[in-house]
Amino acid sequence: MPWHRYANIYDRVEVPLDQRDWPNARITAAPLWVPVDLRDGNQALAEPMDPERKREFFELLVAMGYKEIEVGYPSASQTDFDFVRLIAETDIAPPDVTIVVFTPARRDLIERTAESIRDIRNDVVIHMYTATAPAWRNTVLDKSRHELRELILAGGRDVLEFAGDRPNTRFEFSPEVFNLTEPDFVLEVCDGMTELWQATPQRPVILNLPATVEVATPNVYADQIEYMHRNLSRRDSVVLSVHPHNDRGTGVACAELAVLAGAQRVEGCVFGNGERTGNVDIATLALNLLAQGVDPMIDFSDIDEIARTVAHCTRMSIHERHPYVGDLVHTAFSGTHQDAIKKGFAEHRARAEATSRPECEIDWRVPYLPIDPADVGRTYDAVIRVNSQSGKGGIAYLLLTEYGLDLPRRLQIDFARHVQGHTDETGSEVTAAELYDLFESVYLARQGPVELKDWNTSSDGSTAITLVVDGRDHLSMHRDIGPVEALTRALAGIGRPVEILGLTQQSIGASAVTYLEYRRGDVTGWAGGRSDSVLAASMAAVLVAVNAP
Amino acid sequence: MPWHRYANIYDRVEVPLDQRDWPNARITAAPLWVPVDLRDGNQALAEPMDPERKREFFELLVAMGYKEIEVGYPSASQTDFDFVRLIAETDIAPPDVTIVVFTPARRDLIERTAESIRDIRNDVVIHMYTATAPAWRNTVLDKSRHELRELILAGGRDVLEFAGDRPNTRFEFSPEVFNLTEPDFVLEVCDGMTELWQATPQRPVILNLPATVEVATPNVYADQIEYMHRNLSRRDSVVLSVHPHNDRGTGVACAELAVLAGAQRVEGCVFGNGERTGNVDIATLALNLLAQGVDPMIDFSDIDEIARTVAHCTRMSIHERHPYVGDLVHTAFSGTHQDAIKKGFAEHRARAEATSRPECEIDWRVPYLPIDPADVGRTYDAVIRVNSQSGKGGIAYLLLTEYGLDLPRRLQIDFARHVQGHTDETGSEVTAAELYDLFESVYLARQGPVELKDWNTSSDGSTAITLVVDGRDHLSMHRDIGPVEALTRALAGIGRPVEILGLTQQSIGASAVTYLEYRRGDVTGWAGGRSDSVLAASMAAVLVAVNAP
Repeated sequence: MPWHRYANIYDRVEVPLDQRDWPNARITAAPLWVPVDLRDGNQALAEPMDPERKREFFELLVAMGYKEIEVGYPSASQTDFDFVRLIAETDIAPPDVTIVVFTPARRDLIERTAESIRDIRNDVVIHMYTATAPAWRNTVLDKSRHELRELILAGGRDVLEFAGDRPNTRFEFSPEVFNLTEPDFVLEVCDGMTELWQATPQRPVILNLPATVEVATPNVYADQIEYMHRNLSRRDSVVLSVHPHNDRGTGVACAELAVLAGAQRVEGCVFGNGERTGNVDIATLALNLLAQGVDPMIDFSDIDEIARTVAHCTRMSIHERHPYVGDLVHTAFSGTHQDAIKKGFAEHRARAEATSRPECEIDWRVPYLPIDPADVGRTYDAVIRVNSQSGKGGIAYLLLTEYGLDLPRRLQIDFARHVQGHTDETGSEVTAAELYDLFESVYLARQGPVELKDWNTSSDGSTAITLVVDGRDHLSMHRDIGPVEALTRALAGIGRPVEILGLTQQSIGASAVTYLEYRRGDVTGWAGGRSDSVLAASMAAVLVAVNAP
Repeated sequence: MPWHRYANIYDRVEVPLDQRDWPNARITAAPLWVPVDLRDGNQALAEPMDPERKREFFELLVAMGYKEIEVGYPSASQTDFDFVRLIAETDIAPPDVTIVVFTPARRDLIERTAESIRDIRNDVVIHMYTATAPAWRNTVLDKSRHELRELILAGGRDVLEFAGDRPNTRFEFSPEVFNLTEPDFVLEVCDGMTELWQATPQRPVILNLPATVEVATPNVYADQIEYMHRNLSRRDSVVLSVHPHNDRGTGVACAELAVLAGAQRVEGCVFGNGERTGNVDIATLALNLLAQGVDPMIDFSDIDEIARTVAHCTRMSIHERHPYVGDLVHTAFSGTHQDAIKKGFAEHRARAEATSRPECEIDWRVPYLPIDPADVGRTYDAVIRVNSQSGKGGIAYLLLTEYGLDLPRRLQIDFARHVQGHTDETGSEVTAAELYDLFESVYLARQGPVELKDWNTSSDGSTAITLVVDGRDHLSMHRDIGPVEALTRALAGIGRPVEILGLTQQSIGASAVTYLEYRRGDVTGWAGGRSDSVLAASMAAVLVAVNAP
């Protein structure tokens, strides 16, 4: 590969640090977490959040316990401007939450930003940024170091002019691409800003030092932060903040080592959304603290609900292996892991009994599980398998290899609980045929009060549905909707509504299988259908859903 | 949250290191990469790889340039045993590739492992592991330090007995959960193994030190590795190897800092599959080297093809924001990023012209793009938008807000190229209506030689399809398959096959839209359908696919 096209990183990043303390430091308290999901995260979405999603996300962040939240870029976006006004005019932001608004160093945009925050009762941070790295100065801005410094100071003066006398207002400056900027230049600019803004311990200035594009191993970023920490003037009047991205997959490490090096505040996104590879994941950072015995200061006790809201607002998925929150991270597949975890749980229960305390209060030591899944509202899932690796009783693998059933992951976990219940009852290993029978009885063959007698659908868009309940036929005709929707409408029409949350279809030889996740009232569940066509299988699955107990 | 349940990590991990060199070290060459996708990665899959997938993955690893590959756990799995035999009996492993087989320290399993490798012409590494951390010793194995050391040495003697005289064979030992084991104990055990196995510079022993479950900031792991590096006996006869996992989201950082601390070999998985949060991602590690001017020693020049194979073999998705390979990581959404990148490309072209060299040979300096997407077989995608953030011309957001169309991400990128072509031609900004017209003409309204005259499908499983080509009707009847498959069969029947790669369906008010990714011959593309029902929309999309130019 053409590695010679890329400059040796040590020629691009030189830190004049003659001694470093961070490798000896320890993290004993959480830094101030500042979510930038509504600003930096939002600008990286194919579809930025609409006002409803913005509000939903903001309310989530407040409920989780974040005390300083960047809410938008009001001079660039009417949606963001309106959202800041909503905060000013309603009580959606509790009094102890500080609101951060983002602006470039341009007079008209600073004026507009100041306009957006008028009458807000909360503390406000005005966050001004300018890119400072050589490639940006030369290629994008066409400014010398001196010219750029003057531009930034002029912006700082505009901030004072439009918001200097505002009560409860503090200022933040970000030298964008800090990690590729000459340390002496960034120090000069930052010291200029704290002098201009008259930083004091009572009214500190936030200096936020972004790794806008990750370029080096995280120890280099830690050196850069420690250099600033040691050399900034008015250090006691500065809140040293970091803003790592994740281009090298080391954003979490950069933030942690930066905290060791003196950073007091971390900007990032919950689960790591953001341009390209994302902003640093402040959920992982907080839960890393929990797992090492430090109060994370944020509430993740229902992580699935948080994940659902984040996924809804951002329309981004969360990977199955995402730390702490992925669908698979509290699941063990390997037989040796399962055995060790089982022994660990037994030892855990024994300690609880010996001290007469609830299990959820007992110190956590179970092998292979970094945290107790119950602490984030989860359970531990053992996916038992007969497979090439474990040689033990199994589910997904057996259903796949023996019966061709390719279960969606969440259904695997749902079914594993049924199997667990079954094996706990019988005490014996289950065979593939027993597994299939159980699968069939739980998901495919469930009968109930509602029968689907017949249906017909045509290219002219019409569908006829005949349902039978208590021996009585209910015929309905539907136009201009698909047959599956026609069936759910027919069911709603007889007072038995089913909401389809997801449909997965699979062909097995000549037959089709549908796996359906549904909601009925407050309850969600899984159903399946098997037939000659995808359509018929889906219709059958809807019937199972309506007939589930 | 109940942080007090978790032991302070510094009480669990103490490294008696009085001086450290790793923060001053630099990475100037790639370590030896050893993919463990076929073993450690495989055991974490809901459906472990079948023999075909194992072979496909192995051949991919060979083609990418890996020279040492862990191929399985032959004593635990017949599939793995058979795969090792396949390597012995065929030439799928080139002579310069070393084969690693994995075994626990149990005499019968070591014997079986030795049996699996008989007659292999390649160099072989027998990799024996035992968990050594206190929680595992006490809770899982019920052994004292002394008893466990004896068990491990006995396993080492069994390895010598069954494979000591084998030509071209070396040995590897992993103290599992190294990162939670007392340093003095792990040192004692490792030194015992190198003595027993008579490690020499000519026939070094691999000591592989796993962070089986990540527990501390990556600098702690680096300290642990440097402690071993400094204190191991026979250091010149040891290949120091690491095997990080990713429970804290810092697996990549652990590997990098470990290399700074003296590690020479890294075990992990391509794109980071593995139990729970995965093994360390050796693709990200290698491309991190490329981006900082070091030869990664592995070929990622067609990263999409690698991603397709890995996803096929593991049945795991790769997240949109995964470093280097995610769908969105070479895409800029924000207007300021797009502007900077545009200026960066102009400067890049100017340098190429000034030196009369091809652009792909010119040093890379474009803002916001850590590597040239072309180096991994990609292009840079600017997703232009009219939205709340950028105030510029747009696609996904406009189609969604104005027309309700929720395009799958890859289709967004496909369509963005069409829009780019359109705006490059007309030079003007596009309106929402123009975007919809363009979308319709490219994906929805495409007409061609084949017409679908009518179809009918019933609950008895029968579908009738009437196609028209050149004014001539082709009626076909299909039983026991779904209507969409009936249509693709009808098309194949008249010599116009279309393979459906993916179908995404969406409801917009009363109408349904289908987005379809297809393959015709060697060409893949996108088609769409819009109608009153999901089924009719899907049928229409298949027609567009067959009629695409």
